[in-house]
Amino acid sequence: MEKNTSLEKLRRIDRECCLLARSASLLHWDLETYLPAQGVEERSEQLALLESLCHERFTSTETGRLLDELGSSADNPRGDEKLPDLERDFLRRTRMDYDRKKKLPLDFVAAAAKAEGLSQAAWVEAKTNNNFAAFLPHLETMIDFARRQSLYWGFEGRVYDGLLDIYEPNMGVSEIASVFTPLRERLSALLKKIASKPEPDFSFLNSGFDAQTQAKFNLELMKYLEFNTQRGRLDVSAHPFTTTLGSNDVRITTRYLPDNFLSSIFSTIHECGHAFYELDIPEELHVTCLADGASMGVHESQSRLWENVIGRSLPFWEGLFPVLKKCVPDRFDSVKAEDLYRAVNLAKPSLIRVEADEVSYSLHIILRFELEQGLFSGAIKASDLPSLWRTKMKEYLGIVPETDTQGVLQDVHWSHGSFGYFPSYALGNLYGLQFFRKLKEDIPDFDNILLKGKFSPIHEWLRDNIHKWGRRLSPGELLKKVTGEELSVDPFLKYIEEKYTAIYRI
Amino acid sequence: MEKNTSLEKLRRIDRECCLLARSASLLHWDLETYLPAQGVEERSEQLALLESLCHERFTSTETGRLLDELGSSADNPRGDEKLPDLERDFLRRTRMDYDRKKKLPLDFVAAAAKAEGLSQAAWVEAKTNNNFAAFLPHLETMIDFARRQSLYWGFEGRVYDGLLDIYEPNMGVSEIASVFTPLRERLSALLKKIASKPEPDFSFLNSGFDAQTQAKFNLELMKYLEFNTQRGRLDVSAHPFTTTLGSNDVRITTRYLPDNFLSSIFSTIHECGHAFYELDIPEELHVTCLADGASMGVHESQSRLWENVIGRSLPFWEGLFPVLKKCVPDRFDSVKAEDLYRAVNLAKPSLIRVEADEVSYSLHIILRFELEQGLFSGAIKASDLPSLWRTKMKEYLGIVPETDTQGVLQDVHWSHGSFGYFPSYALGNLYGLQFFRKLKEDIPDFDNILLKGKFSPIHEWLRDNIHKWGRRLSPGELLKKVTGEELSVDPFLKYIEEKYTAIYRI
Repeated sequence: MEKNTSLEKLRRIDRECCLLARSASLLHWDLETYLPAQGVEERSEQLALLESLCHERFTSTETGRLLDELGSSADNPRGDEKLPDLERDFLRRTRMDYDRKKKLPLDFVAAAAKAEGLSQAAWVEAKTNNNFAAFLPHLETMIDFARRQSLYWGFEGRVYDGLLDIYEPNMGVSEIASVFTPLRERLSALLKKIASKPEPDFSFLNSGFDAQTQAKFNLELMKYLEFNTQRGRLDVSAHPFTTTLGSNDVRITTRYLPDNFLSSIFSTIHECGHAFYELDIPEELHVTCLADGASMGVHESQSRLWENVIGRSLPFWEGLFPVLKKCVPDRFDSVKAEDLYRAVNLAKPSLIRVEADEVSYSLHIILRFELEQGLFSGAIKASDLPSLWRTKMKEYLGIVPETDTQGVLQDVHWSHGSFGYFPSYALGNLYGLQFFRKLKEDIPDFDNILLKGKFSPIHEWLRDNIHKWGRRLSPGELLKKVTGEELSVDPFLKYIEEKYTAIYRI
Repeated sequence: MEKNTSLEKLRRIDRECCLLARSASLLHWDLETYLPAQGVEERSEQLALLESLCHERFTSTETGRLLDELGSSADNPRGDEKLPDLERDFLRRTRMDYDRKKKLPLDFVAAAAKAEGLSQAAWVEAKTNNNFAAFLPHLETMIDFARRQSLYWGFEGRVYDGLLDIYEPNMGVSEIASVFTPLRERLSALLKKIASKPEPDFSFLNSGFDAQTQAKFNLELMKYLEFNTQRGRLDVSAHPFTTTLGSNDVRITTRYLPDNFLSSIFSTIHECGHAFYELDIPEELHVTCLADGASMGVHESQSRLWENVIGRSLPFWEGLFPVLKKCVPDRFDSVKAEDLYRAVNLAKPSLIRVEADEVSYSLHIILRFELEQGLFSGAIKASDLPSLWRTKMKEYLGIVPETDTQGVLQDVHWSHGSFGYFPSYALGNLYGLQFFRKLKEDIPDFDNILLKGKFSPIHEWLRDNIHKWGRRLSPGELLKKVTGEELSVDPFLKYIEEKYTAIYRI
């Protein structure tokens, strides 16, 4: 009885923190979508306050006492063995989060949240004006906050490991480097082979699709992928993202570039992949700390599986093409699905990560990983980033940005202080292909499903094998449970080499 | 020094409560504009949590102690005489709010907030399905919460006075009845005279204006009225409203009914009037409890001044007409500004309050006032409301709704538990015309300003005389300061009788 009462109390604290965090997520979502220009400063202050309140509530001595009462400790985070598995997973996650968060002083959390708001606003302006120098002091501040956070957690001497661990538990520099090295070598080699082949024609996609046309099709596409619009919505932001504002309120964004229809389409598919994960969280985990993905990398495995493995396949475009033609009449009369398939799989180094193709994408990530590693080992100063960026772009992708806007300033992450986040994108490719190999074993008529555009069997497989676990399992545990394997680059490299060898007739 | 420290601490608490309240306002705004259908329940829980946190923080013993330290008491709310006026006004407001709020137990506040979310959702459904019985239990719950709130405040034996006081300080049943009685008599008489005159033709406004056309013009209209869109925005909701999400983030909504272009236009003008008040709050009051209007009635004086006195005048339409014609080509070729002026001043009893004309509008309010009075005196049961509604509609407006959707279920207010709010709308008309008489003395070329559509002198006058005070003065103090008068029905009745006598050639 007493155990139950402690559990009930702990669940109440967790629920309140979750409700507060999602309220803060709405403030963020609005900041990126609808906030009037002059509202930014006060919004940052609102966000900092909500984050402080959430931190204060969660790290109260009461939380620690309740965890202790339930038998959860650093050595035995899952607590009392008599409790059901779900409760024990909840205790493990809460204990781990608590031990982390209680090490951060409240004034540090509030100061970081406030600095983040200002830094992001400074980054927007610096990016617009191609003025890295104006952003540099904010960047240095954010690096300092990240460093101190990792030190608070006890990662002395290996600060970057502490940051990587936020997004991908138990994956440090050496684990990530051991998969990134073969990835870099084989992707670079493939890219060189592709470069010697003729480029597919994709001029029919280049221009003349106004925002209204793109919006109309993207809304259709969302429904085509079986997104329940009673439980979420599509909006527009400068940088596409997914955010969970409630168990039945998961929102995605895309953007409509006048000369790049594909950008909106693949952003929508990518974010739908994230949203399906969030919307599939089972009811027993709703409004708890377990209502999330296993890690950023596993989350990216879902978005990149939908975007690339499904969204850049021939049968998918054969199924989708009639929908596109109906939405955008007259523009595709002389085009075949096969032409579209080739166009969406153009592999050609580009300056911008989010527009990169499947082959070169991971190279953008590896570049960022190496720069972050240097920043936190002390080998690199923030002021060196623009020139090092150019050097590495030349080395890995063979192209060099003319401006910092198209270089070091292109991504929002560092302005948020989200150092250690980028590797998750590349790890997502690896997890994704490992999961996919199993999915295709279980669903042999996969191609036919894409062709028909009736995705329920895929949704069900992902729900029953991956999504239903929420954040109960670590990425490694989940991977093992679904595939029986450890993390591996092989399925991804095999997939990508076979696909592009065929497309480019290498 | 110690005084300053106490003041700083009190200001910090006030600022945090204001930031939290505005975060909650964003949750509300989103609920009314963009929230996916299935997100309502969890959103209600988020709102209840934020309201509890705000209540908890503000009513802490620390707030009381700081007020005491600063010499503020129930007898001397403005505190230490050596403090500057602004600080003393701040203390007065904080003391009054504190003495009220601390009387409400936290669990009462949380339960009311949660019940409100569910009640509103039930009302939406009941209204859609014309099913008053389904809404009745929620309505009874909300009446009970309102009654208990008034009792907590000590209004035993005069519960409705306590509710009226929330929106219009120091205005109880007898004060309001004393102005509503002459209002009802003279407006009813005027309406009877108008009914015997021929109706102006307004068929040219009736149909064929799709949502896109209406949206285009309403955005132009907002800018025409000199709304700074860097500090706010216009969205769409079922019920038009204004909400302040930040000192530089004031949002208005409108709605696009296919057969009623005027509805969107006058909603936009009305909400702009509210927004101008909020946006004009001087910087020294930003993010404090003084950053608001003097009362709901004074707020309505601003919205209804813009909507009616300005927005339904001939010179305004002469100025605006070219803008309308440019936005909506070909539709107004055979129409003159004078025709539009007559169309927007059609005085004809209607079932729906928000669509009512200037003459009959106050009668809708008086009906609600009398019903609320009966509900809280015990003379009326909630279950009697539909039939009493029909009886009073017949008596005051000469028409009877066929459905409860068009009758007792039409307004959102009762579902929120906002009993005592309606009278503010009619009081707004009275305040508005008292202010306006002074404004016209100070700005003799008022008509010419409307004709040119350059509203700065009007904005400046309202800012310098009314808006700059924020919530520092009570409605009575403000009225006295601006006009030298007490509340009076005369200016409003004089304005409306002269205007409609001319239009209808009575």
